[in-house]
Amino acid sequence: MLTLYSMPSSGNSYKPRLLLAHLGMAFNHVAMDANDGSTRTDAYRAKNPNGKLPLLELDDGRFLAESNAILLYLAEGTPYLPADRYLRALCYQWMFFEQYSHEPAIAVRLSNILHAANRPDVRDEDMQDLLERGNKALAVMEVQLQNTPFLAGENLSVADISLYGYSHSAERAGFDLDDFPAVKSWLKRVSAEPGHVPIDWLPE
Amino acid sequence: MLTLYSMPSSGNSYKPRLLLAHLGMAFNHVAMDANDGSTRTDAYRAKNPNGKLPLLELDDGRFLAESNAILLYLAEGTPYLPADRYLRALCYQWMFFEQYSHEPAIAVRLSNILHAANRPDVRDEDMQDLLERGNKALAVMEVQLQNTPFLAGENLSVADISLYGYSHSAERAGFDLDDFPAVKSWLKRVSAEPGHVPIDWLPE
Repeated sequence: MLTLYSMPSSGNSYKPRLLLAHLGMAFNHVAMDANDGSTRTDAYRAKNPNGKLPLLELDDGRFLAESNAILLYLAEGTPYLPADRYLRALCYQWMFFEQYSHEPAIAVRLSNILHAANRPDVRDEDMQDLLERGNKALAVMEVQLQNTPFLAGENLSVADISLYGYSHSAERAGFDLDDFPAVKSWLKRVSAEPGHVPIDWLPE
Repeated sequence: MLTLYSMPSSGNSYKPRLLLAHLGMAFNHVAMDANDGSTRTDAYRAKNPNGKLPLLELDDGRFLAESNAILLYLAEGTPYLPADRYLRALCYQWMFFEQYSHEPAIAVRLSNILHAANRPDVRDEDMQDLLERGNKALAVMEVQLQNTPFLAGENLSVADISLYGYSHSAERAGFDLDDFPAVKSWLKRVSAEPGHVPIDWLPE
């Protein structure tokens, strides 16, 4: 059986849990916390030299890191990764956008709010910069979602699961989704899909 | 014929040019500059709402953004994207690592050096932080490259082409590659592969 090492409160860790729930795949879950030092031990770095969560362990003991790589691996041959070459490439496009333009603004801003007491070096201008960058990312999604119900077209895909990971927390991160009505509708549409689970869902 | 919009001096734009050279594929090239405002016009944003380079235009006028998504699209069915599911997933892993952990440190530090005159708000501690983050990324590559000649195993893949994009500029960005001997050997190995072209290569 697959084993997923993941942090229950993290959007990056939520992504593979959400896809596994959609796929109805059983998996072992190892709950970890990126803030308690356990991902920086030699034992964990032997599994993932980058010391990050989530991490997938296959049946045969091989490992795969990076939330979006795990999504693409798990989704292969399922409806969550389109068979059409161009639509599949659009999924890649949105997932690289997620890690470069979206997560480093929205997830980091959320984390700075949740852990403010431990981050005295975060300046007001840093938070303002994160707000501007996150608004730009949401505006790029808004353009697409005004045209198609899901990011890569007509159907829910790994692109949506990836971007849902932190978009669903954007308001907690200080973003006003009233400025992005198509994103707001999309969030409702994704969460209404059969098989959807909230971030605090874990396998029994 | 494919059309690539790319910035001749940019590592992100170099990645698809390097793969296209390896593949021996003819393409139209539109040279653009991310610093002269031309990627922020309405005309360009109609092609790529995120206003970034590179951008691929297919024969039929459809567009694909994100350097690594373009690599995966072009490499499909070629030796540069492994047929084995796990090796292919390792390519994804390294490419998401590249955009999250490597490029935002090494490329941004290089850019801050090259454009120092225009970036008075970059602080010494920002540059120190970028150095530490970049060294961490290079250390993750070093662990892998001590074990295998290329990032996803025995053969050159899109993972190597992606990470070569800025690793080959790491010394100009202030990183000491003598601390990463396996990375240094790998850079030579990648540049010695048949079909390799330098960053300033453009199609005729």
